[in-house]
Amino acid sequence: MKLREQHKTFGGFTEFWTHNSDVCNAPMNFAVFRPPQAAEGPVPILYYLSGLTCSEENFIIKAGAQRLAAELGLFLVVNDTSPRNVIAGEDDSDHLGSGAGYYIDATESPWASHYQMYSYVTEELPALIHANFPVDSSRESIMGHSMGGHGALTVYLKNQDRYKSVSAMAPISAPTLRYDDGGGFPSYLGKDKSTWGDYDAHLLVQKHGSKLPILFCQGADDELIQFLMPEKFVEAAKAVNVEIDYRLRQGYGHNYFYVQSFIEEHLRWHAKALLA
Amino acid sequence: MKLREQHKTFGGFTEFWTHNSDVCNAPMNFAVFRPPQAAEGPVPILYYLSGLTCSEENFIIKAGAQRLAAELGLFLVVNDTSPRNVIAGEDDSDHLGSGAGYYIDATESPWASHYQMYSYVTEELPALIHANFPVDSSRESIMGHSMGGHGALTVYLKNQDRYKSVSAMAPISAPTLRYDDGGGFPSYLGKDKSTWGDYDAHLLVQKHGSKLPILFCQGADDELIQFLMPEKFVEAAKAVNVEIDYRLRQGYGHNYFYVQSFIEEHLRWHAKALLA
Repeated sequence: MKLREQHKTFGGFTEFWTHNSDVCNAPMNFAVFRPPQAAEGPVPILYYLSGLTCSEENFIIKAGAQRLAAELGLFLVVNDTSPRNVIAGEDDSDHLGSGAGYYIDATESPWASHYQMYSYVTEELPALIHANFPVDSSRESIMGHSMGGHGALTVYLKNQDRYKSVSAMAPISAPTLRYDDGGGFPSYLGKDKSTWGDYDAHLLVQKHGSKLPILFCQGADDELIQFLMPEKFVEAAKAVNVEIDYRLRQGYGHNYFYVQSFIEEHLRWHAKALLA
Repeated sequence: MKLREQHKTFGGFTEFWTHNSDVCNAPMNFAVFRPPQAAEGPVPILYYLSGLTCSEENFIIKAGAQRLAAELGLFLVVNDTSPRNVIAGEDDSDHLGSGAGYYIDATESPWASHYQMYSYVTEELPALIHANFPVDSSRESIMGHSMGGHGALTVYLKNQDRYKSVSAMAPISAPTLRYDDGGGFPSYLGKDKSTWGDYDAHLLVQKHGSKLPILFCQGADDELIQFLMPEKFVEAAKAVNVEIDYRLRQGYGHNYFYVQSFIEEHLRWHAKALLA
């Protein structure tokens, strides 16, 4: 495990790390923010899952989250969204390959040999964080944006005992209904859609319900809203009596100007659960 | 004048514009943040001058300033740091050409035909802002980072009646003392250093003094501190009884993690003067 960069930020440290991932069979990058409180003892963890095309840098550079994490005493963990430089042609599409892991364990060739992002963010990365940083592994929460919102919701819904809180910003909510493309789904999982449901937030909430209330935020002017289908998740959640706090934001788009505008609401949502 | 992008941010709008500059004889880009208060009437202006290699995007994406500008009702203006794609070889060095205008009116060929960044940020851009946006031109302040800190200090010191407040983050303070290179100075102004003093903050404060107190912030672990020479400006200011609020920040570097950590102090410093 190698520390590539460390930058003092709001009294804590923004750090960029690289390690050799067993499940992805490749080097993987991640960023953390070590809040000032971590110098005194273990602090709770908030995992942030990023969207398509993002590396571990986008959120940690653009969202303004360190200010709040420093105030609240949260340890931020931001994974890269895929392995990189491992499969020929992986950069050819924004919707497949590098920057587009979709938080799926791929079963199809050539992706299956490296694209195991579900196992990576649920098992390998948390174990690494618990073992190497001043964190309290009994207090973990998860959130994400866009493809990472899909990741946060699907990961949480299948591991409900593990997280203290969950939230999503403009998540991909119903990938099985995007018959025309489905992002990387057909390439990672095959064309038989029966396997896709295990990574579809609106189907998973229908199947498992939710023990926790879910904060779900969406820009009303998001240029990708037809692709994201937030209403499918909200309807499915309500149909099984899941408590969903749906915040539709008039005038906001999909980018990090939207994310930075509402990151405070999300971090305070998580802090309320993590510091209770 | 063309609006390239507009993104709702903290209730206001982050905007990216392009216009044809007369003084630079080239298209120039700039960004603004239009705070929510601008919908009700003219608001004061804060000019932010960026550092080497930066375009109009870096600060507006990375600094987290919109949150504060929205709270305080400040109109942010962020210029690009040079014309682009106008002179052959302009991208060859980080210290000269594109991204490195140094807020100088170049007198030497080939730069003089396009690199008129002092006139641009003191005359053309403000006139454009006053004419086209809901701003109060009688209330203007200026700040900058690194090369832009040099810009903010030199521009202010030569135009003291114009600005309500001034601040600098890790500014280049004494370019005439950097005999080994001087950044783009010899290329823009010629090798005769007698002309450089007009763009050297530590000489200008010696010469003109300052009507206003100056907020001057510096990361103690800044990897460029030997090049920036903050002590030269602080000594020169004190020698002529200028009120300087020098804030040396232990552990901080030169980058936008440092800028975002202290941007709040700067915006509140300016708001105190602009909203008085």
